Amino acid sequence: MVMKVHGSVLSPPVMRVFAALYEKDLEFEFIRVSVAARENKDEHFLALNPFGQIPAFEDGDLKLFESRAITQYIAHVYTDKGTPLVCEGKPMATVGVWLEVEAHQFDPAATKLQWELVYKSMQGKATDAAAVEENEAKLAKVLDVYEARLSQSKYLGCDCYTLADLHHLPALINLMGTPVKKLFDARPKVSAWVADIMARPASAKVFALRYQQ
Amino acid sequence: MVMKVHGSVLSPPVMRVFAALYEKDLEFEFIRVSVAARENKDEHFLALNPFGQIPAFEDGDLKLFESRAITQYIAHVYTDKGTPLVCEGKPMATVGVWLEVEAHQFDPAATKLQWELVYKSMQGKATDAAAVEENEAKLAKVLDVYEARLSQSKYLGCDCYTLADLHHLPALINLMGTPVKKLFDARPKVSAWVADIMARPASAKVFALRYQQ
Ligand SMILES: N[C@@H](CCC(=O)N[C@@H](CS)C(=O)NCC(=O)O)C(=O)O
Ligand SMILES: N[C@@H](CCC(=O)N[C@@H](CS)C(=O)NCC(=O)O)C(=O)O
Repeated sequence: MVMKVHGSVLSPPVMRVFAALYEKDLEFEFIRVSVAARENKDEHFLALNPFGQIPAFEDGDLKLFESRAITQYIAHVYTDKGTPLVCEGKPMATVGVWLEVEAHQFDPAATKLQWELVYKSMQGKATDAAAVEENEAKLAKVLDVYEARLSQSKYLGCDCYTLADLHHLPALINLMGTPVKKLFDARPKVSAWVADIMARPASAKVFALRYQQ
Repeated sequence: MVMKVHGSVLSPPVMRVFAALYEKDLEFEFIRVSVAARENKDEHFLALNPFGQIPAFEDGDLKLFESRAITQYIAHVYTDKGTPLVCEGKPMATVGVWLEVEAHQFDPAATKLQWELVYKSMQGKATDAAAVEENEAKLAKVLDVYEARLSQSKYLGCDCYTLADLHHLPALINLMGTPVKKLFDARPKVSAWVADIMARPASAKVFALRYQQ
C-alpha cells in the first residue's frame, strides 16, 4: 500500500514531508485538503489529525501528523532508500541539537516572515511592516549563529545533509522570493548552504510541485 | 567524568533536563548561570550555546544545548539506566508525533502563561490579562485533544511514560500553582495524567530543587 500525504502543496509543513519522500525516492499518493474551504476541520480529517492541521500522513495502518514527526519516521524506517537523512552514533546527538534549533530558533521568525511576505499577499492582505522588521532582526541573529556553525561543518548537523537541513527547505523556497533573501545573501557560508540545498534534485521537485496544482 | 548541566533551577527547559537525569538515576554537576546577571551572554557560556540560552550540557567532550535535544541524548545513550523514556519499534513513530505536539501545540501557550503568571510576578511585573485569556483558550483546545488521546492510551505517546510526557513536567509544575490549574482539573483523564506525572519520584526531585537555591 502506497503512503498517503494529506495537505496542500503551498503549505510549508506539507512541503517538508514531500522533501523527505523525494530524498528517499518513495512513491506516495497526494490527497488535497483545502484549508481555505476548511476541509482540515472535517470529521474525516480530524480523525487523521485531531488538531485539524495539514499535513497528515498514512503508511498502511499507521497514521501520523506533525511534519517533523513524519520526516523522522520516513528517515528512520526507510533507511535503505535514497539519502540517509540521519547519521548514526555520536554525531546524532549534535544533529539532534540542530533539529531543535530549526524548530525553536529559526522557525518562529521564518514562519512569521512567510506569513507576512508570502501568504498574506496571496490572500490580498496588507503586510505588517513592523512585524517584518521585528522578525527580520530575529532571523538575522539566528543566521549569524548559522554562519559560524557552517564554518565548522558542511551542514548544520554534521558533514552530511540531514533532516536538520531539510526541515528548513520550505522556508528557504518561500523566503528566497522575498526581500528577506538579503539576510541569507549577506552571509557567505549561509548563502552557499542555501544554494546547495536548493540545487538538490529532491528540492527542485518540491519547488516544481506548486506549479502542478 | 560526571555530566554537567549549566542553568538555573527555575528555568523550565533546565528543569526538563533535570527530570530526564533523575528518571535515569544519573549523577550530574549543576553549574549555576544567572540570566538576571546576563551570565548566559558571557563568552564562556556562548561557547556552550551560541544562542546564549540555558540550559547547556556537557558529557565529557560532547557539548549540547536545546533542552529536548539533551533529553533525547540522555534517553538514547543511557538506555540501561532507570526509566526507559523511549520505546523501540512501531510505537516510536507515535511517540514522535506527541513529542512534536508538546513542542508545537502545547509549549507556545504554556510558555506564555508561565511568563505571565509565574515569572512576571516574580519580577514584580504586572500580568497582561488579555494575553492570559488568549493563551488559556489556546491551551484549553490542546487539552481537549489530550483528553481524547488519554482515553485511548495511558500516556501521550504509548502506554508507558516517555519523553513525550516528561517534556511537559516544567509547565505542569509551574501552572499547577496558578489559576490555569482549572483547565487541567476540568478534564478527568488529563488531571489523572498530571497527578501521575507529579507523583513520580524524579518529578518530586525536580520540584524540590527550586527550594535548594
Ligand atoms: N507543527 C505543525 C504545523 C502545521 C500547520 O501549521 N499547518 C497549517 C498550514 S501551513 C494549517 O493546517 N493551518 C490550519 C489551521 O491551523 O487551522 C507541523 O509541522 O505539521
Ligand atoms: N528552546 C530552548 C529554550 C531555552 C530558553 O528559552 N531559555 C531561557 C530561560 S527559560 C533563556 O536562557 N533566556 C535568556 C535569553 O534568551 O537571553 C530550550 O528548550 O532549551
